[in-house]
Amino acid sequence: MQNLPPPLVIGIAGGSGSGKTTLAMLVLERVGADRIAYLPHDAYYKDLTGLQFNQRMEVNFDHPDSLDTPLLIYHIQRLRHHQPVDLPIYDFKTHTRTDQIVRVEPKPVIMVEGILIFGDAELRKLLDVKIFVDTDSDIRFIRRLERDINERGRTTEMVVHQYLSTVRPMHLEFVEPSKRYADVIVPEGGLNTVAMEMVVARLEALLQDKARHNPIP
Amino acid sequence: MQNLPPPLVIGIAGGSGSGKTTLAMLVLERVGADRIAYLPHDAYYKDLTGLQFNQRMEVNFDHPDSLDTPLLIYHIQRLRHHQPVDLPIYDFKTHTRTDQIVRVEPKPVIMVEGILIFGDAELRKLLDVKIFVDTDSDIRFIRRLERDINERGRTTEMVVHQYLSTVRPMHLEFVEPSKRYADVIVPEGGLNTVAMEMVVARLEALLQDKARHNPIP
Repeated sequence: MQNLPPPLVIGIAGGSGSGKTTLAMLVLERVGADRIAYLPHDAYYKDLTGLQFNQRMEVNFDHPDSLDTPLLIYHIQRLRHHQPVDLPIYDFKTHTRTDQIVRVEPKPVIMVEGILIFGDAELRKLLDVKIFVDTDSDIRFIRRLERDINERGRTTEMVVHQYLSTVRPMHLEFVEPSKRYADVIVPEGGLNTVAMEMVVARLEALLQDKARHNPIP
Repeated sequence: MQNLPPPLVIGIAGGSGSGKTTLAMLVLERVGADRIAYLPHDAYYKDLTGLQFNQRMEVNFDHPDSLDTPLLIYHIQRLRHHQPVDLPIYDFKTHTRTDQIVRVEPKPVIMVEGILIFGDAELRKLLDVKIFVDTDSDIRFIRRLERDINERGRTTEMVVHQYLSTVRPMHLEFVEPSKRYADVIVPEGGLNTVAMEMVVARLEALLQDKARHNPIP
């Protein structure tokens, strides 16, 4: 166990609605969930149980302070040492961390995904491959609008208000500048097959290298 | 011969001094020159023998019209049909096409490289994978300055004059907007090992697929 090489850590960032989750899901499907430990930064939102629902609505969910990034960093470090972690499950309707968890076992690849993961210097240092999904802001807003209405029970008015008051300013302040740290920038995310195939090919090549160095007995 | 699959065509674009040639050379070295037919758009500059040297200096070498793109397109089409082509050799000191050529044999990968290759719709259609190397303009200018002084016998004054009068305006008019057509954007070009490894892995995977479909007898 101690002689295993450390897992490869890949980070997928990009603005809200950029298509980064779709890209992450496609890579997960293609490379195989049995070989990737998947850590969405979204799961690490801080619990807002102490606040009333109306107050929760006013929290800036796109500011780095709303996320428990030290816990994510700790989880990556544990997985890199081949230890399992307990991923929290967050309820986006009530803005609370549920009392359920998902056990994530160590795998040869760790995939971290989120809008702000390249903004934190300590987190960034743990990422071997940094991919930023870059999509025009109008397309990103439309995708977010559709998702929040269909999956998160929001109204159009609520989505527009949240977008203009926090999502957009936080994107310009934190997400857009973090693009500079990317190794590769992917326009359009999940719809971009050429880029997706490139990411998959690189992971496959790394996994083959690992397999050669550590043949399964 | 007729049953061979068509070669994969990869295009590497980016501004002058972006590091795209370095990236292309590294990929060529890693994947192997025996498997890649390399067509730099630079080799297709139009011959300026009819002009006096002073007039040649005033030609806008960064405008698409200064390049014989139809010949490049014809060459890609011939290579895609497994036919060899004669790459012209251009003399950058005298701005003339020499009477020498390089015979380029058909290979499983065709690599096309140049600042303007994503700007031409007909050429773009022939590119299966489009990579844009994106580097800050100050760094690009410094690299160009060093190259033109060391390799092309120019003075600093000549480089600055050419940069401000043609390179920069043409970059903003033709190169920068063509980034939109890229499948993958690579910050910093040849110095970006993570991105280079990703391109190499994708080409290797495609070459392995081809080998499986067409085993060497």
